Amino acid sequence: MFYPEPIAKLIDAFTRLPGVGPKTAGRLAFHVLRMKEDDVLDFAKSLVSVKRNLHYCSVCCNITDVDPCRICQDKSRDSSTICVVQEPKDLVAMERTKEFNGYYHVLHGAISPMEGIGPDEIRIADLLKRLGDDTVQELILATNPNIEGEATAMYLSRLVKPFGLRVTRIAHGLPVGGDLEYADEVTLSKALEGRRELS
Amino acid sequence: MFYPEPIAKLIDAFTRLPGVGPKTAGRLAFHVLRMKEDDVLDFAKSLVSVKRNLHYCSVCCNITDVDPCRICQDKSRDSSTICVVQEPKDLVAMERTKEFNGYYHVLHGAISPMEGIGPDEIRIADLLKRLGDDTVQELILATNPNIEGEATAMYLSRLVKPFGLRVTRIAHGLPVGGDLEYADEVTLSKALEGRRELS
Repeated sequence: MFYPEPIAKLIDAFTRLPGVGPKTAGRLAFHVLRMKEDDVLDFAKSLVSVKRNLHYCSVCCNITDVDPCRICQDKSRDSSTICVVQEPKDLVAMERTKEFNGYYHVLHGAISPMEGIGPDEIRIADLLKRLGDDTVQELILATNPNIEGEATAMYLSRLVKPFGLRVTRIAHGLPVGGDLEYADEVTLSKALEGRRELS
Repeated sequence: MFYPEPIAKLIDAFTRLPGVGPKTAGRLAFHVLRMKEDDVLDFAKSLVSVKRNLHYCSVCCNITDVDPCRICQDKSRDSSTICVVQEPKDLVAMERTKEFNGYYHVLHGAISPMEGIGPDEIRIADLLKRLGDDTVQELILATNPNIEGEATAMYLSRLVKPFGLRVTRIAHGLPVGGDLEYADEVTLSKALEGRRELS
């Protein structure tokens, strides 16, 4: 190595992040070298803090610094609906729409036999526990619209059938602002299949 | 913010790095959340260590953890030549060629009136100090082949003329493995201008 050890180590640490190659890692490390010491300290602290102060919510399994998480603590929400998502990021995406006022359940993954992820590897058991009483009326399956997400939705829908609640899946179709010409066939046929009468 | 504070802070810290937008920052922060605690601690430590344990070499101004740096300490090098580069990364690039055996001088920038960087903002004074005795015979200007780099090379070459030493500029031309068809006109005309007789 031609770099002094401290910077070589930092480059190495950056390289381990997803999507960061050696060139980018070098650029980032040199940027850190030029940052103010306080900012670097804050950066280092927030790294450690993420590992130390974040846990999974004991109710919805979302990541949180308080337990239960702020959403599960919020009594103004509609307790009859649970929206099931794969990742905390998906929950944030749903919250951004400001259209959903129920509670969430975060699975932390999707069933994927190819990667050896079965129903026991994701937070399905925690979800079933929440369906025990009659509070929940509808389960919205908002897993990703890909093979793993669909498989998970299908699996869940069969699994919760005995609970006698309404199970829905978010719609497939053309993204708003998209172009029919560039839509793939599967999306287009799903959009056709899910067509609705205009009132 | 929809994220718990620790992760929001880390996303913010990542966003401040060059070339990292909010989406990438989110992806990186969630990756950190899944990393082993020891690895995260190492990452945090190496961030701080870069700020605390790296200094500028008192001779060549390269970043180093020992002073003078390992290259300046190396007595086996040719003390008659100094290669002037803009950044520590450029020094590493030169070292990789294994073709240069002299010493270096790192300017930490280039003259750029547009960005308000004049000769006093970069390490030119430190360079002049090194030319005081008659040890140095040749100064190789290896600043970048762009406007700022050329201006800096031009400025330096005039500045050190009184010292009566040989001042050279690294060659412009076609990159090895490149294609004549895709070369820009300026590069091609520089390559033509710098043509050499085949022996």
